[in-house]
Amino acid sequence: MQMLKDRIIRDGQVLPGNILKVDSFLNHQIDPVLMDAIGEEFARRFMNEPITRILTIESSGIAPALFAGYHLRVPVVFAKKTESANQDPDTFAAPVHSYTRNRDNVIRVACRYLSASDHILVIDDFLAHGEALLGLADLVSQAGASLAGAGIVIEKGFQDGGKRVRTSGIRVESLAIIQDMSDGHVRFQ
Amino acid sequence: MQMLKDRIIRDGQVLPGNILKVDSFLNHQIDPVLMDAIGEEFARRFMNEPITRILTIESSGIAPALFAGYHLRVPVVFAKKTESANQDPDTFAAPVHSYTRNRDNVIRVACRYLSASDHILVIDDFLAHGEALLGLADLVSQAGASLAGAGIVIEKGFQDGGKRVRTSGIRVESLAIIQDMSDGHVRFQ
Repeated sequence: MQMLKDRIIRDGQVLPGNILKVDSFLNHQIDPVLMDAIGEEFARRFMNEPITRILTIESSGIAPALFAGYHLRVPVVFAKKTESANQDPDTFAAPVHSYTRNRDNVIRVACRYLSASDHILVIDDFLAHGEALLGLADLVSQAGASLAGAGIVIEKGFQDGGKRVRTSGIRVESLAIIQDMSDGHVRFQ
Repeated sequence: MQMLKDRIIRDGQVLPGNILKVDSFLNHQIDPVLMDAIGEEFARRFMNEPITRILTIESSGIAPALFAGYHLRVPVVFAKKTESANQDPDTFAAPVHSYTRNRDNVIRVACRYLSASDHILVIDDFLAHGEALLGLADLVSQAGASLAGAGIVIEKGFQDGGKRVRTSGIRVESLAIIQDMSDGHVRFQ
């Protein structure tokens, strides 16, 4: 998606440790017009799937998922990383290892927001090691729902997540795949 | 806003302790079409203000803030409740007491996403005791920015937050104000 790639080149910052900082438009400050274009592109790529619901993870997945849900006219559910005070007792839960923070989180979705009759599109902002995406796919599987695939805003193509997730049989549509940024300059596949 | 009130009556659950559970359309599962209408209504109410940026708080404020930002064509910044791994060292920070969880959180925004030339609209999903809203207003004040006002999806009119915030001189626009729900039925002002 050219508009996204241009924005990454213009506003992304490459930091030591293969970190791409895009918090000026994606995950701290958000550009809603770009998110709308991203949501429309996800809707276009999955238009032939009878999607009933979108599943994402707080907080950075919410923006792209919400606009994809708007264009597909389906509800968006976000998995929670912390236990809510008024949370349903019945939840699907999956462990997710965070490499950035080097710790394990449990992500949760109330059982009533995923059902066996659902055909789910999973959306997330980044795909690096694939932990979050596989955790979300695990929740879909626990619900007995089917998985249409995953829509990713930025995939780090030089890390193993894309291969892990695709090998497990999941269709992955990434709007920008970074081939290399080891010299501080982003190059796309 | 009638569409929102109808939805609260239809899908909201009143739980003991004056809790209104709206996680089927607002803060766990999200209805993007309703959020778009909410964002449009906030944009309409603040159309005479030269807003440059929207400030909200993760995670439940993001959806209504994002669509307000879309309709106003301004960026949306969300304050973080946890320290990110790759966070800017320079942040504005404010303490916020959570009554639901009975603990103090610190909310943070990177300094470069709020500036003295900004005219900020603050958006949040709920106004009850006013803690989150006053914390967000504190961040705006630290940045030397001006505050256009606050857009709230649901205000608990029987709690003291609305009065506290309005008394401090902040314009508050709430799309649904609940007068009473002590008998398990929601009545609006």
